[in-house]
Amino acid sequence: MIDYGKFLSANAGTMRESAIRQMGSVLARATDVVSFAPGYPAEDEFPWLVCREVAAELLGGSDGSVLQYGPTRGYQPLREVLATLMSDRDVRVPADRIMVTSGSQQGLDLVARVLLDPGDVVLVELPSYTGAITAFRNVGASLVGVRQSAQGIDLDHLGYVCSRLQAEGRQLKFLYVVPNFQNPSGSLLPLARRRDLLDWAHRHDLLIVEDDPYRDLFFSDVTQVEDTRPIAADDDDGRVVYLSSFSKTLAPGFRVAWFAGPEPLLSKLEFAKQAADLCTGGLDQRIVHAACRRGVLAAHLPHLRAHYQRKRDVMSEALRRTLAGQVEWAAPRGGFFLWLSLREPLRSDVLLPVARAHGVIFVVGSAFFVNGEGHSHLRLSFSAPAPERITIGVERLAAAIAAVAIGDHVGSGRS
Amino acid sequence: MIDYGKFLSANAGTMRESAIRQMGSVLARATDVVSFAPGYPAEDEFPWLVCREVAAELLGGSDGSVLQYGPTRGYQPLREVLATLMSDRDVRVPADRIMVTSGSQQGLDLVARVLLDPGDVVLVELPSYTGAITAFRNVGASLVGVRQSAQGIDLDHLGYVCSRLQAEGRQLKFLYVVPNFQNPSGSLLPLARRRDLLDWAHRHDLLIVEDDPYRDLFFSDVTQVEDTRPIAADDDDGRVVYLSSFSKTLAPGFRVAWFAGPEPLLSKLEFAKQAADLCTGGLDQRIVHAACRRGVLAAHLPHLRAHYQRKRDVMSEALRRTLAGQVEWAAPRGGFFLWLSLREPLRSDVLLPVARAHGVIFVVGSAFFVNGEGHSHLRLSFSAPAPERITIGVERLAAAIAAVAIGDHVGSGRS
Repeated sequence: MIDYGKFLSANAGTMRESAIRQMGSVLARATDVVSFAPGYPAEDEFPWLVCREVAAELLGGSDGSVLQYGPTRGYQPLREVLATLMSDRDVRVPADRIMVTSGSQQGLDLVARVLLDPGDVVLVELPSYTGAITAFRNVGASLVGVRQSAQGIDLDHLGYVCSRLQAEGRQLKFLYVVPNFQNPSGSLLPLARRRDLLDWAHRHDLLIVEDDPYRDLFFSDVTQVEDTRPIAADDDDGRVVYLSSFSKTLAPGFRVAWFAGPEPLLSKLEFAKQAADLCTGGLDQRIVHAACRRGVLAAHLPHLRAHYQRKRDVMSEALRRTLAGQVEWAAPRGGFFLWLSLREPLRSDVLLPVARAHGVIFVVGSAFFVNGEGHSHLRLSFSAPAPERITIGVERLAAAIAAVAIGDHVGSGRS
Repeated sequence: MIDYGKFLSANAGTMRESAIRQMGSVLARATDVVSFAPGYPAEDEFPWLVCREVAAELLGGSDGSVLQYGPTRGYQPLREVLATLMSDRDVRVPADRIMVTSGSQQGLDLVARVLLDPGDVVLVELPSYTGAITAFRNVGASLVGVRQSAQGIDLDHLGYVCSRLQAEGRQLKFLYVVPNFQNPSGSLLPLARRRDLLDWAHRHDLLIVEDDPYRDLFFSDVTQVEDTRPIAADDDDGRVVYLSSFSKTLAPGFRVAWFAGPEPLLSKLEFAKQAADLCTGGLDQRIVHAACRRGVLAAHLPHLRAHYQRKRDVMSEALRRTLAGQVEWAAPRGGFFLWLSLREPLRSDVLLPVARAHGVIFVVGSAFFVNGEGHSHLRLSFSAPAPERITIGVERLAAAIAAVAIGDHVGSGRS
């Protein structure tokens, strides 16, 4: 019997399955489970018709490059579309400082590999996105959490954490932040706080990695497009690497996302991508490009925003009806997630197996906290299930919470 | 002005553009250049019609999962097709020990990240594939070369290198090998030598990473399918991670490849892929799956083999006609590459700019040698250009060699 452990790298030794993906496997095995776990976009909202038309044209065979290897930085016409799209977001960046990635997850991974040595520190929000946490940890980085309040990242705590790390002689590289409808908290970082963060980065000579996949999905009853202005829009000295994606606005199956940043970093990120996968899929990039050129985003986004806003309403309403006074949440102003706080001492990791037995799953809050906290929280994704399933799922969640509260779950687990 | 250098990781500091991709950029800028540089498959041989039909069906919208996030290990029906395909290659492996990757380059990258710590040693052939060299180097590994003879890897040299590394107390992890129609040498490792390597790995308790993208493209005038039996086919104790790809047999634009290996490594490789890109493109995987199910490979491969065999003949014939006695090469028995040896002291890096001025490019031999050698070699890819372009390209190469030989290139460079 071979001892494979001795062949593993130090980083591999600590690699674990993501809590979100784990729930995906649960779902694949289950029959009638309502999944609030993965942040999947709604499949019936994918632009099927346009994609089918565009694919048929692209696969006609007249342009052989469609299925050939392509440039590592991405399909040039798509990069030009992306420059326009960035300009619509008030970020002025030429196409040659934009790189296409195989999903934003790859962007985060490349950023990790190019910027982080083992032991380097990344600052992340408490809570923060698990996919980013994993990408940074997989290169051996240390993650240090900064508290969030209703006004976003707590600047006092940020200052305190920085001083402490400095005193310890730690190598701090960047702050990772999801300003728009954060995964998992759903929170929107106020504009003033975004400028504060830029000032902070400038003062401390640090970088900011801004992850912005949900920006287009603001809910118009409580959010204006101006509220989503990226940090990168005011970055005059090249401190921000900005990531965004088509996964939530077109479809994730294309694995087409992008980032923009200062050229000295871009060239290193390009070399890293060369060795990581050579290039992003050619057909996928061209379908996304053609869909954008046909105005799919402009035509479809208002509808998509209304779609997810309605699902937020359905979930909020069901929570109010079934769990008022027992749980708390801030109404999401955009995005896919509702961040629920349980009444202590109820823990979400205790609740999860009971909820599964009741036919509903979610992601435990602790998965998003790098400091071991978060046990009284859980993330509910309202994006994928149909409205009637959201209602059923929340009712099951309420039943599970009731069962845990009266200690009934031990018995039900046996039956 | 920000000093970005201080933000870079140690690995990023040494990342460089690949020599092959560099030539791709040259090509993109050039007008009438014959490119023997990148190993691109022939675009007119891609199965356009089937892909168009299949894509239209898949994008009908009846199966929402087509454009959704998918399992990290890959689309299950594709993995089952892959198990059958592996069985056709005499490798018995269940679908659950096969993982789909975003091109084999990602497979190599994941292997590097899961198996290698900085300073660990990987043994590679002299010469070896640059993409693998870069992936291994990007995690800080040391690459040590083992000589090849006409009979493949030199076992005496392998033994010598191992003893030396052991004496130096170095951590050796695996041997990377491309047994079938190697990139760049085009050589075919004899079956007896493959078994020798397995014995060697067993004796030294090491792994073998077997990269096999060209296996289906043997040339029937000089090679039988039996000659291509993978090392993994005789791996009884789980020492081989086997990689292969659809990039050369269907099309690279799909970025669909796979690897198979022992489960303890697979699970770590899966976690690494989760953080690297979550999953490979869903539409791409399903197009490849449907094409396989329709028998495209079986129907198309004989034609594809004949196609590349003819191109090999055209290149060999042109070389014989224009450069007989001035260069040497072994006739490729499959694959995409012809490995040319110049007469010393002529160096391929001296020849390259002259060749570019004459309208032909290739990859210099030194790009494939981890020990600083290879200057008298160059790699010619005959896969992509049309036959008449191959002839023109070789004539230009002959003219460039003549120009260098008589010292004429300095003058021509000025004109």
